[in-house]
Amino acid sequence: MSFEPQKINGKFKGKDIISLDQFSPKDIDILFRLARKMKVIAANGKPSRVLDGKIVTLIFYEPSSRTFGSFGASVKQLGGQTVDILNPQVFSSVSKGETLEDTIRVFEAYCDAIVIRHPVAGTAKIAAEAAKFVPILNAGDGIGEHPTQTLLDLCTINEKHGRLNKLTGVMVGDLLNGRTVHSLLKGLSLYKNNTVYLLSPKELKLSKEDFRDYSLRGVKLIEISKQEELPKNADFWYWTRVQKERLKSLENYESLKNRFIVTKNLVNQKAGKNTIIMHPLPRVGEIDPIVDSDPRAVYLSSQVRNGMYIRMALLSLVITGK
Amino acid sequence: MSFEPQKINGKFKGKDIISLDQFSPKDIDILFRLARKMKVIAANGKPSRVLDGKIVTLIFYEPSSRTFGSFGASVKQLGGQTVDILNPQVFSSVSKGETLEDTIRVFEAYCDAIVIRHPVAGTAKIAAEAAKFVPILNAGDGIGEHPTQTLLDLCTINEKHGRLNKLTGVMVGDLLNGRTVHSLLKGLSLYKNNTVYLLSPKELKLSKEDFRDYSLRGVKLIEISKQEELPKNADFWYWTRVQKERLKSLENYESLKNRFIVTKNLVNQKAGKNTIIMHPLPRVGEIDPIVDSDPRAVYLSSQVRNGMYIRMALLSLVITGK
Amino acid sequence: MSFEPQKINGKFKGKDIISLDQFSPKDIDILFRLARKMKVIAANGKPSRVLDGKIVTLIFYEPSSRTFGSFGASVKQLGGQTVDILNPQVFSSVSKGETLEDTIRVFEAYCDAIVIRHPVAGTAKIAAEAAKFVPILNAGDGIGEHPTQTLLDLCTINEKHGRLNKLTGVMVGDLLNGRTVHSLLKGLSLYKNNTVYLLSPKELKLSKEDFRDYSLRGVKLIEISKQEELPKNADFWYWTRVQKERLKSLENYESLKNRFIVTKNLVNQKAGKNTIIMHPLPRVGEIDPIVDSDPRAVYLSSQVRNGMYIRMALLSLVITGK
Repeated sequence: MSFEPQKINGKFKGKDIISLDQFSPKDIDILFRLARKMKVIAANGKPSRVLDGKIVTLIFYEPSSRTFGSFGASVKQLGGQTVDILNPQVFSSVSKGETLEDTIRVFEAYCDAIVIRHPVAGTAKIAAEAAKFVPILNAGDGIGEHPTQTLLDLCTINEKHGRLNKLTGVMVGDLLNGRTVHSLLKGLSLYKNNTVYLLSPKELKLSKEDFRDYSLRGVKLIEISKQEELPKNADFWYWTRVQKERLKSLENYESLKNRFIVTKNLVNQKAGKNTIIMHPLPRVGEIDPIVDSDPRAVYLSSQVRNGMYIRMALLSLVITGK
Repeated sequence: MSFEPQKINGKFKGKDIISLDQFSPKDIDILFRLARKMKVIAANGKPSRVLDGKIVTLIFYEPSSRTFGSFGASVKQLGGQTVDILNPQVFSSVSKGETLEDTIRVFEAYCDAIVIRHPVAGTAKIAAEAAKFVPILNAGDGIGEHPTQTLLDLCTINEKHGRLNKLTGVMVGDLLNGRTVHSLLKGLSLYKNNTVYLLSPKELKLSKEDFRDYSLRGVKLIEISKQEELPKNADFWYWTRVQKERLKSLENYESLKNRFIVTKNLVNQKAGKNTIIMHPLPRVGEIDPIVDSDPRAVYLSSQVRNGMYIRMALLSLVITGK
Repeated sequence: MSFEPQKINGKFKGKDIISLDQFSPKDIDILFRLARKMKVIAANGKPSRVLDGKIVTLIFYEPSSRTFGSFGASVKQLGGQTVDILNPQVFSSVSKGETLEDTIRVFEAYCDAIVIRHPVAGTAKIAAEAAKFVPILNAGDGIGEHPTQTLLDLCTINEKHGRLNKLTGVMVGDLLNGRTVHSLLKGLSLYKNNTVYLLSPKELKLSKEDFRDYSLRGVKLIEISKQEELPKNADFWYWTRVQKERLKSLENYESLKNRFIVTKNLVNQKAGKNTIIMHPLPRVGEIDPIVDSDPRAVYLSSQVRNGMYIRMALLSLVITGK
């Protein structure tokens, strides 16, 4: 039987955090409550020291300055320190032919938790299986999972609307390949009565299998093909980038990348008072910067900050249990 | 109207530090007094904790191990921590086409201040304009500015002579392109009755425009062409490297690089008891290592240390206001 | 007279740590006692703060994520912070032609100790000679020395057997080039009545000069050529990798690399109840992973952990004297 990360089941301490599938709505609730507490403490300017004397190793086999910065700051905000191992496959032991398992076992000897980023799906799980003493946190493994991204997205929606059910949302962009979109759909499927409008170039539509799968999980999906068909007053817009690196030809990219753009005009026409405009970032033209100053645009403000609070809460829970 | 960083005007808290032009002699005086205090605390071996719980992001688009190390140590000497983002244009989001503005807005969500180094002049100002919540400190933007370098140079002169006016100095090397030389001339022009002798290969003389400009600002400039013409007993010598990377041909470099060299002999002939010998480093042959042990040679001792104390003082002032 | 690092002679404070030759058995004993104390403190989960407010610069001219991680964690476990300078020869001042001496003198201005890793033998000694104020610790200089590796090996043997004399050991692999093997033989020669069986492909045997040298130092060496000749119940096995980078041809490497392998079978036949199985890591096939779970296999457990405790103890001793 192959290794599966344990369900959280209300107990975070010592658990690996590999997949959103480990979380029940109750687990998510525990996490969000602590994240909110972290936010209040930060707002009061009182340094928390819950990770005082703790070391977290950030081992990134693939660069991601944003996720690296967010996890690093999360550890340090709590009084802990990081050991930063960047590109070990180029630098040293790993390049000498060491297995991932050995690398993990060596680094776990030095620290209290390991955050791993890797380009290959499934790697975080292998790392978790190898580690004997410390929890492994998945910071994204290729087309696999990136659970803290989804948790911060859910946290941002929940913060605004006070619930994760009975929501009407909009997802736009590369729905075929976009990892964040898929994970968020999975996350929303943990709650009842959610409806999501899907807007993408037809080449980048959700695959039939995925459409069926998420529908069966309970999310009501509605495919549309023009911005005009967007519902008014949705609870959230989740706009994403067409990822150049996932397309076969650059020509394809040029024709697809800016098919759908958030403009001031579109916001005026379709967004409601309580609609929040989200984006997992980076953006490369999908949202007109003039929209940034709209209080409903959260992609550069609370969405980013919640990423840090979620990671602070998660690190605190898996390392100290509280 | 384009964005201009605010004058300090006695109030550092929350201000971006982009250019020497923001400083009045009174501001410089406040800074130097705190830097001196930092030095005393360090000498007593008592760790200061003024940045306890604070995080400073060091975002370097261009490597500079010296400036990186000095800023990093400054934060840590004060009990703070850093998040180190090196070469984001190669690693990740930025390489995916993200704008500098978005990058800055993301990282400011995680920290209390951002130190930025960039190869392109004007970038620090753009970053400062983008940041909504935390101060930006310019750690050098190409041929633009590097204000902490100039402040540490002024601090070193002031520490020795107890004043920044009525000085006679010497500047040698690439006066055409050298950023440190230009900034120091600007800094000295804030004070009265300073005279600077300029010695360089004729291909690397101060441009006519710059000569006129600094003269108008009030520094008396005297161009000389041979080491023999150096004044005796100057208050400071500021020797600089001919920067290979700024010259059109390598051949040119070879013929120019070691035209003027500080030797023991030259020191004996021209330096006085109170002359200090400075260099912004790195050096590649402009100063004979035998001179290093001369107590008047400060380039490897107090000049380097003052860089850290100045940065400690500046970080403390912009983050905490004191 | 050329510079030689000082003997420890019971006094660690301020001393450079360049070579195992600086240590007497009494010095090693002081170090091991403190390392054991570090281990107990860590096991109790009480953060030590002996390096509170101290900064250690890790300057790595050659990547080595394992040694980098171990030293970094050691500093942070003790409440200190690091300034990490990776590949300065590529990044910045050094690439502009700065000498190692100048680099060291600049960085020592910012910190309380410097850990240096360099590909060229003898570099750590040059750094130690250049530094005026802070101790230099050698984290490996090419085919030169890597004293903390040997100290952790000795510590691991001592921890198990309670002594470093009257031992019977086995060393396997590339005995011609392997730095760790040579250093450990040197270390064992500080104690009396040790016997080591040497097993290697004949192309990778200890050179005649080295064989004679270590014998004269007092270690009894016995060369064998087949796994069958291994002694039963040895006190330790020290298995090493055939280093691809040291061999002339890749073909050679393929034929030599897995000549001798630790299998469960071999352990059953030759290891005793108290034999410990060691490896300096990384391994690339010399030890069957099935052996990892054997309690006598210490290469992924206490050997790695002792590396950190030894480095913690050493840093504490050279920086604070206790």
